[in-house]
Amino acid sequence: MPIQITSLRNPRVKEAAALREARERRQRQEMIIDGVREIRRACEAGIKLKEVFFCASLLTSEGKQLLSQVSESETELFEVTSRVFEKLNFGDRQDGIVAVAATPQRSLAEIEDQTGTALVAILEAIEKPGNLGAIIRTADGAGLSGVIAADLRTDLYNPNTIRASLGTIFSMPVVAMDSRSAREWALARGLQLVAARVEGTIRYDQVDFTRPTGIVLGNEATGLTPIWKRADVLGVRIPMLGQADSLNVSVAAAILFYEAQRQRGFPIPARRKRER
Amino acid sequence: MPIQITSLRNPRVKEAAALREARERRQRQEMIIDGVREIRRACEAGIKLKEVFFCASLLTSEGKQLLSQVSESETELFEVTSRVFEKLNFGDRQDGIVAVAATPQRSLAEIEDQTGTALVAILEAIEKPGNLGAIIRTADGAGLSGVIAADLRTDLYNPNTIRASLGTIFSMPVVAMDSRSAREWALARGLQLVAARVEGTIRYDQVDFTRPTGIVLGNEATGLTPIWKRADVLGVRIPMLGQADSLNVSVAAAILFYEAQRQRGFPIPARRKRER
Repeated sequence: MPIQITSLRNPRVKEAAALREARERRQRQEMIIDGVREIRRACEAGIKLKEVFFCASLLTSEGKQLLSQVSESETELFEVTSRVFEKLNFGDRQDGIVAVAATPQRSLAEIEDQTGTALVAILEAIEKPGNLGAIIRTADGAGLSGVIAADLRTDLYNPNTIRASLGTIFSMPVVAMDSRSAREWALARGLQLVAARVEGTIRYDQVDFTRPTGIVLGNEATGLTPIWKRADVLGVRIPMLGQADSLNVSVAAAILFYEAQRQRGFPIPARRKRER
Repeated sequence: MPIQITSLRNPRVKEAAALREARERRQRQEMIIDGVREIRRACEAGIKLKEVFFCASLLTSEGKQLLSQVSESETELFEVTSRVFEKLNFGDRQDGIVAVAATPQRSLAEIEDQTGTALVAILEAIEKPGNLGAIIRTADGAGLSGVIAADLRTDLYNPNTIRASLGTIFSMPVVAMDSRSAREWALARGLQLVAARVEGTIRYDQVDFTRPTGIVLGNEATGLTPIWKRADVLGVRIPMLGQADSLNVSVAAAILFYEAQRQRGFPIPARRKRER
């Protein structure tokens, strides 16, 4: 039976709501997950939920189904009033359910497995959680081996990132590390490095993406730092045929990820084959 | 010499700020443009600015240069205090300059010119101004002939659309019309219609995009209406190799626009050649 909460000052509610703050997430190594789809994807990826808060009057049939699955686990369930839920809820989403869980500790080993055919996104110094989440969602769609968030300027499990990724951040291997180590790791595993750059000399569709590859994308405003401009990194350009001189980073990512997989014939990733 | 405004209750300021509301924009057929880059692109596209409001202490050197160009035209200039500027300003941008202008009346004739090689985006029932603007920015980058916003559920010159397009909405022919007329126009001009659909039978990279083509994309949540599912529309799918079953509409647009131009060898659009 869920515990009923009607007070806005309930300490469990306060603690959960505090996870909207990056500092709290970092200190407690916990995250807050909004939405039925996102929570379901977290469960499917093996993430153990610590607490679930729900507002019965807001639940969809999908939400009720998720809740009955969750109630069979060790997760603590809290039923809250709509006023309390509003305090926990994020933005305009009204799925009637949020969950708290420990942030996953992903390792490069999950990508490592696949280095023979690796197609890894390496994102440097991304600032906007929405961009990071959008790129992870596209990396999932394109069946990439993993995503390295290098020198990330937001936190990986920001609620906006989780949401923009539609929860694919839980199934896709996503690892945060520093830029220098990301470069060394990729080169040591024999990945060719292909970086999107406005002044790139090779057109992106003329690269051989059938080789194990790291696709490198830079910060939204300032682009890549010099360590991704060395001679052992292929600078590729996406033609700009109009007035503007650049694409949004998540759009550039999509064009490169799908061109790479087009050249490879859209293989189903090894990770997905195991799941099926 | 610019007119000085220090009062928040100044009627010119109130009228300009009211253009944040869709209803006002529709009634007055005017728009408000934020940011140096966006205003510059509007001017380059031949849009006559009615009024420019600026806050001298916030102007960058680019903003000052733009202002000196504008002051040679018939545009009314208003210098405002930072408190007044805050009322006019949108979001967190601090370029120190906003402009008011009549919304352009674009016609299909601007796209018509190019029907022999046309590559037109047809967007149905897009709801989010940010998505519309992002797609226009990518359409500009990919050198499309034009964008048709069919049965649009936001207004074309919403400040968010202008901003997400980086001002490319002013140079790219963008026309709002109903979905049925868009379909008739395209078929009458001999365009093949290629619609992105989850259940599409043909993989997107197996379409011959060298033919004059309309690329059709649907609403963010509900996809396309039946008129784009008839036998004379090619339903194409973008492979989804991960957990999620769809891509963001602006990401799907980018993949299709760039695949089409890849097949064509990235030709510079006729419109751009005339400008150069």
